[in-house]
Amino acid sequence: MAKEPKLAVIPLGGLGEIGKNMTAVRFGDNIVLIDCGLMFPEEEMLGIDIVIPDISYLLENKEYVRGILLTHGHEDHIGALPYVLRQINVPVYGSKLALGLVHGKLKEHHMVDQVHLQTVKPRDIIQIGPFKVEFIRVSHSIPDAMALAIHTPVGTLLHTGDFKIDQTPVDGEVIDLHKFAALGEKGVLVMMSDSTNVERPGYTMSERVVGNTFDETFRHAKERIIIATFASNVHRLQQAILVAHKYERHVAVVGRSMVNVMTVASELGYLNIPEGTLIELDEAARLPKNKVVLLTTGSQGEPMSALTRIAMSDHRQVDIMPGDTVIISATPIPGNEKLVARIIDQLFKLGAKVIYEGASGIHVSGHPSQEELKLMLNLVKPKFFIPVHGEYRMLKRHAELARDLGIPTENTFVAENGQVLEFTRKYGRMAGRVTSGKVLVDGLGVGDVGNIVLRDRKQLSQDGILIVVVTMSKENNQVLAGPDIVSRGFVYVRESEILMEEAKVKVKAALERCSSRGICEWAAIKSQVRDDLGKFLYERTRRRPMILPIIMEV
Amino acid sequence: MAKEPKLAVIPLGGLGEIGKNMTAVRFGDNIVLIDCGLMFPEEEMLGIDIVIPDISYLLENKEYVRGILLTHGHEDHIGALPYVLRQINVPVYGSKLALGLVHGKLKEHHMVDQVHLQTVKPRDIIQIGPFKVEFIRVSHSIPDAMALAIHTPVGTLLHTGDFKIDQTPVDGEVIDLHKFAALGEKGVLVMMSDSTNVERPGYTMSERVVGNTFDETFRHAKERIIIATFASNVHRLQQAILVAHKYERHVAVVGRSMVNVMTVASELGYLNIPEGTLIELDEAARLPKNKVVLLTTGSQGEPMSALTRIAMSDHRQVDIMPGDTVIISATPIPGNEKLVARIIDQLFKLGAKVIYEGASGIHVSGHPSQEELKLMLNLVKPKFFIPVHGEYRMLKRHAELARDLGIPTENTFVAENGQVLEFTRKYGRMAGRVTSGKVLVDGLGVGDVGNIVLRDRKQLSQDGILIVVVTMSKENNQVLAGPDIVSRGFVYVRESEILMEEAKVKVKAALERCSSRGICEWAAIKSQVRDDLGKFLYERTRRRPMILPIIMEV
Repeated sequence: MAKEPKLAVIPLGGLGEIGKNMTAVRFGDNIVLIDCGLMFPEEEMLGIDIVIPDISYLLENKEYVRGILLTHGHEDHIGALPYVLRQINVPVYGSKLALGLVHGKLKEHHMVDQVHLQTVKPRDIIQIGPFKVEFIRVSHSIPDAMALAIHTPVGTLLHTGDFKIDQTPVDGEVIDLHKFAALGEKGVLVMMSDSTNVERPGYTMSERVVGNTFDETFRHAKERIIIATFASNVHRLQQAILVAHKYERHVAVVGRSMVNVMTVASELGYLNIPEGTLIELDEAARLPKNKVVLLTTGSQGEPMSALTRIAMSDHRQVDIMPGDTVIISATPIPGNEKLVARIIDQLFKLGAKVIYEGASGIHVSGHPSQEELKLMLNLVKPKFFIPVHGEYRMLKRHAELARDLGIPTENTFVAENGQVLEFTRKYGRMAGRVTSGKVLVDGLGVGDVGNIVLRDRKQLSQDGILIVVVTMSKENNQVLAGPDIVSRGFVYVRESEILMEEAKVKVKAALERCSSRGICEWAAIKSQVRDDLGKFLYERTRRRPMILPIIMEV
Repeated sequence: MAKEPKLAVIPLGGLGEIGKNMTAVRFGDNIVLIDCGLMFPEEEMLGIDIVIPDISYLLENKEYVRGILLTHGHEDHIGALPYVLRQINVPVYGSKLALGLVHGKLKEHHMVDQVHLQTVKPRDIIQIGPFKVEFIRVSHSIPDAMALAIHTPVGTLLHTGDFKIDQTPVDGEVIDLHKFAALGEKGVLVMMSDSTNVERPGYTMSERVVGNTFDETFRHAKERIIIATFASNVHRLQQAILVAHKYERHVAVVGRSMVNVMTVASELGYLNIPEGTLIELDEAARLPKNKVVLLTTGSQGEPMSALTRIAMSDHRQVDIMPGDTVIISATPIPGNEKLVARIIDQLFKLGAKVIYEGASGIHVSGHPSQEELKLMLNLVKPKFFIPVHGEYRMLKRHAELARDLGIPTENTFVAENGQVLEFTRKYGRMAGRVTSGKVLVDGLGVGDVGNIVLRDRKQLSQDGILIVVVTMSKENNQVLAGPDIVSRGFVYVRESEILMEEAKVKVKAALERCSSRGICEWAAIKSQVRDDLGKFLYERTRRRPMILPIIMEV
């Protein structure tokens, strides 16, 4: 095969998972990155705060990375930036709002002065090395979300980003269907498209529907109204504010991230707030209840969020009173169902009227359902197709959808993170792999918690730990003190004194056995203690706590 | 008020929660218990196996307890029996199937010979002290489920148990609407009714729908078929077996609880298995794939279940091959969504065709939707109403439903576990409380794991533990050995040697500080070490591991 120029598309996150979206696009010695997101930890990642993509590949090719393109300002698209920029400092391109949110993040990480942020807007075109990048407006659950058309010497790569097709967007800025049509007409080599909602038939409802539901609810509410939703859904905040104004209510904001987004969004001109509508929380407390709306975080039942604290009667400033209306304008993300249900129960118990899930029009998704995905595929008519942003079954379903629309199966790539997809004008193929994976962030530690630590945390969480300490003589292996046994998370000691005494006897016996057999290697002694005590405890309790023998030498 | 005879209804489980259903019914010195169920642990109950009701009230009134009535054989209605019968040995009344399953449980607990099990069937009437108990057939996701009408000197208490109204039940045994009608006509004092599905409008579909879906799927399947469902749903197993027979396939059973239920159900005559249909698993492996159906557990993605092991390519005898059809005939119970999704992804990756949730008719609920609940309320026309089996919001919704049908709000009791509800012919009221709550079972320990242990497990699971050991001289508090620091679940030690060395220095400094200040109480020394080390580690890592200082004295 003659050496043709090739475009490489390398997903480093967002495939086979929901979150930490990141794709490297490479042509020769030039790489641009699309998005740089984080993921929230899976249940079994005990104690982990966030998960970011493994960027070994980018570090190995550091000198070729030219910039980072952001489709929009959600955490799963921008959340890894502070970690990545610390290692690869390149310009970041994104909408005013996305960069406003990035700015806040960099400030927290004391990195503001070190990073070049460049604002772009829909229909802007920028040149980065061999890439001509065009930004295209889409609808999504945050303003100014954009798809990217990256024109390369071998053809155009179109990445939809997260999108939906909202015919009646709150800000009046309709998705740029004309541009997608024009690109399709001219010919698109590869399309990457959002698979999040591929399991849903039909169309995703317009964000405006939620505004109508707010209106309906406000009309009937007699006391205070509390709306919990995603902080970043500026359009929804906007609708809540306008409806509040209509019904002569004042709006106060509760919860750190909500305050943050409101500040950024209104500073940057994304919010139209009628004068006098927004008030401080302590002012709201002094107004009649039927004059107040609270906007709050916690729609996912997050344990430390404002709504959770309010529901648990644990919030400094807000108490639920009978007659309050609480609108949970969100759907629980898989894994959060029970947390959210608990909040709803608590609110009901306090006498609130709770409007949640099942209720129609209380939340709409920001992602495209099947008919929107089909429309996008038909408009863009890509030669090659890579479903992205989804768990494996979703990517698979999206591929089947494309097949039904006439894109040949061999031109569709259901890929995994780290897989290199290579394209020329004529063909596309899987071309090997690069390092990819999950880097766990726990507190300040990035990547220092791995499988061993997680396995230990798991065992500790299930049956706790017993620590056996013995002080022995250096000279003759005589026990000078102990064995002492301390347990945590195993059993409530006061109720199990006898068990612990028996355990001590077992340990003594094990030590004596070692000594009588002339075993004096500590590793062997420890292992004997661990085995004997473990067996004893399992027989007596059917539990397997971690057993940690420690020998002190004097 | 003259001393009238009173009926007390005391829910000990199943209110404000899904599971561990148990109600004490008391008249004078006579108590009967309705159901005796377990609950599966909440996410934050780390390491806990099952949860059972606190039966302090029953133990305090042990001599008055006359018997336990079972509505059906599901775990949340019979699972606590071995624990309760060990303390209160009274006769247990239930259907053949329910008692068959109870028998298996008692066998595991070596209690078979000690318990009197008495089989009853629908329309049977038994007298227990002042209670005339009538068993009434209902539809549910296990055969021979029954409601109970307990006739007492002050009136009739009707407990629906778990039910649905299936007009076309698989076994042809329609819910005994006539009996409910007759009872309603004669007058029912109190009704307790199943609230599990009160949030769903309309009717719950007939179990037969699932059989039709099986038929449709079998007709198109070219290779092996694997059906995962709840082991106890005998009707569904029956339908799978008959459809398999129709399409000339043989059925093998995988998974311990599925094998167990199949054995009990067929021994007791609940299953019609055409000769030669049922085969062993190893025989199935030798047959052509299009002649085989596997019935398996694991429809909830339980980590140790057969389906999970199959999906993870970790099952001794079953491998998924491309072309296999896997039917997950269940809806994830809240909290299990992510586990199930992971299984589905894995199966897709192995090339299976997976039919799951969204697919219509692949699963139906065993509980009544709103229209069925209304029908039951209208048939029975109770004077007083207690919604049961549900989280708080569901009980509340069920109460609202009853109100809409004309039951006065003051006659409806949205109660909590432990609340005593007192009824005479004329009035009903809340009348105080008895002890109630959750008893946690961990291995062989019943109730020995409480909040302190769980809090420790939680902390251990988040950031692990650091153990600091020092050997000190008895005489002069001189450090003879150590400090040694051992960590588990905190940080991967090899990558953090420097940190651990620095930690040791901190501990030494703390010890010296104590010594120089003449502090020699160990509690004070330990607390100094804990504080200094904790502060240091938090500054350096933003983690808060448990810190456990141990001083050995020589």
